[in-house]
Amino acid sequence: MGVSSGRSSDESSKRKVGMGTVGKRRGSAGSGNGPAPRYTVGLDIGGTKILGALLDPAGDVVSTVRRSTVHGADGLIAGAARAVRDVVASGGVELSDLAGVGLGIPGIVDHRSGTVKHAVNLGVNDDELPLAGLLSDELGGVPVVVENDLNVAAVGAAHVLERSGADGDHEDLAFLALGTGLASGLVLDGRLRRGASGAAGEIGHVPVDPLGPDCSCGQRGCLERFASGKALEAAWPSRHGKPSPVELFEAARAGDEEAIVVKDRFASATAAAVRLLVLTTDVRHVVLGGGVAQLGTELLDAVQDALREQAKVSPFLGSLKLAERVRLAPTHVPVAAVGAAVLGRRS
Amino acid sequence: MGVSSGRSSDESSKRKVGMGTVGKRRGSAGSGNGPAPRYTVGLDIGGTKILGALLDPAGDVVSTVRRSTVHGADGLIAGAARAVRDVVASGGVELSDLAGVGLGIPGIVDHRSGTVKHAVNLGVNDDELPLAGLLSDELGGVPVVVENDLNVAAVGAAHVLERSGADGDHEDLAFLALGTGLASGLVLDGRLRRGASGAAGEIGHVPVDPLGPDCSCGQRGCLERFASGKALEAAWPSRHGKPSPVELFEAARAGDEEAIVVKDRFASATAAAVRLLVLTTDVRHVVLGGGVAQLGTELLDAVQDALREQAKVSPFLGSLKLAERVRLAPTHVPVAAVGAAVLGRRS
Repeated sequence: MGVSSGRSSDESSKRKVGMGTVGKRRGSAGSGNGPAPRYTVGLDIGGTKILGALLDPAGDVVSTVRRSTVHGADGLIAGAARAVRDVVASGGVELSDLAGVGLGIPGIVDHRSGTVKHAVNLGVNDDELPLAGLLSDELGGVPVVVENDLNVAAVGAAHVLERSGADGDHEDLAFLALGTGLASGLVLDGRLRRGASGAAGEIGHVPVDPLGPDCSCGQRGCLERFASGKALEAAWPSRHGKPSPVELFEAARAGDEEAIVVKDRFASATAAAVRLLVLTTDVRHVVLGGGVAQLGTELLDAVQDALREQAKVSPFLGSLKLAERVRLAPTHVPVAAVGAAVLGRRS
Repeated sequence: MGVSSGRSSDESSKRKVGMGTVGKRRGSAGSGNGPAPRYTVGLDIGGTKILGALLDPAGDVVSTVRRSTVHGADGLIAGAARAVRDVVASGGVELSDLAGVGLGIPGIVDHRSGTVKHAVNLGVNDDELPLAGLLSDELGGVPVVVENDLNVAAVGAAHVLERSGADGDHEDLAFLALGTGLASGLVLDGRLRRGASGAAGEIGHVPVDPLGPDCSCGQRGCLERFASGKALEAAWPSRHGKPSPVELFEAARAGDEEAIVVKDRFASATAAAVRLLVLTTDVRHVVLGGGVAQLGTELLDAVQDALREQAKVSPFLGSLKLAERVRLAPTHVPVAAVGAAVLGRRS
């Protein structure tokens, strides 16, 4: 299962990230009547790396850290604990300054009990792992909360967006993760929407074509079969050692007609995901994230063009201004780690 | 536009509806520290009738009323005012006992300003009508709120369901209205979800078949073309003077093979609407309402069967227990009027 060992690619940095300078401050340590808000740490634990962020009491990112993931339960906990200590040290504070730690994990998470199941990417295969409790013990009792990776990404994107001052209104968005699969996290009216069974935002398995290809979920024609990294890789396998989306967009840009068709179809399917999110939840923003979103503005342009194209035939869709709702996930901060840190405040 | 005049079919009744006996009481007048909660009235204003309900401070339905709708702005306001006065009188209280009045209206509602547009069914065609303000004036200053008809239905269903004690948890549901068209209202984590542009729950216009029939919205293969009263009427026009859904289900019950096919297709499309709602918002309950839902348990059975059928091919769907989430809208109370009265509390 590929244990990553070294610290060779590790880095940590202390920096006051830009958002703080333009963002709204919600308060500062020691002021006000309530208990002083304190620092929190968030970790975004992925299959290959752990990204960490330290948030100060005002909600600004003070320091970030990046570590390789060590697979398996023991490695995971030791690695997470080390990442917390490192990002705290980078930020010039102490573990005892922390109000809490939030973790974002791919897998089935029970946020109430702090347990994780089937986090196959992390080498946690079968048993339920009481991750929050074990990490809290490892950190001398700091409260720890665990959340689904898409949920922390949505919370992080909402936090960054709201503080960017771009929009005077409350936090309201879907984080649309174009990763290997397709799924989303939802923050509605300022609150994380988990759903009755933790399945909110599982739009990848909405069937959209009765004659479409079989899906691994057992259904047919699921949206994920058209709008995901896996779908792109199948339609345009990488030939030159770069990720499939990059090669596809390069070929389309160079005028390859087949590539243009595949790209347009992908953009149209991603636009369908945006439309689906708005027609069900009417989120104010749809934030494109996940591996495929590393394409950046080229992807954004293609999806917005597809949305405008679809709106041409439907005044109803036009009135929803779908293209204007879409944006790219922030890249100047590790947005999922920031979201985990925001949730750590509520621990 | 068919002005209904008479009171011939009108009725009003004073009754303590059953829910109160099993429901949880949230408080009662005069107790507690805050200001005493007071009575509210809700009206569900439809194209042919106005249903009204008086809620007491504990949230129980005290009295209900049913009046014919008078079309056009003036008639609408006078009729609504009369319905409020009548349901209040039926309940043995005074206008001055009201904390507020809530209205549920089909059409484009701005709940912030209390205005209504394009309520064509009510003879309000063009201009923006400041309904809340005008009705409030007519009632001597009682605060009035206006809300979309699906939203009040969802709030009412959540109120009734929560008080029925069937489920210990918070209010969390979609009210799936199988009317002429297809749309839903959402109460998520106990709060009405309107969405950024009031479009939350507009699932009727999610395309689900690229080769499907054209939709009036300009798109093709929208879910509404398969799961709505209009879709049923097109597939099985009524021949014997009863509503098309009733005739269809009767024919299917009698063994008509064509009817069985049409019925199964409709049940499957309605099941797709349930699946769509759960895969996006993960609501705990999906409540079937609207005209077609007057079929009652026969409809419920058909939709649940279709959901179980779909779950057979997908362990993922099976894990979501979709069939168990579906239920019929309560019929012992005018659920939309109750929801309007609940919203009237917040006026």
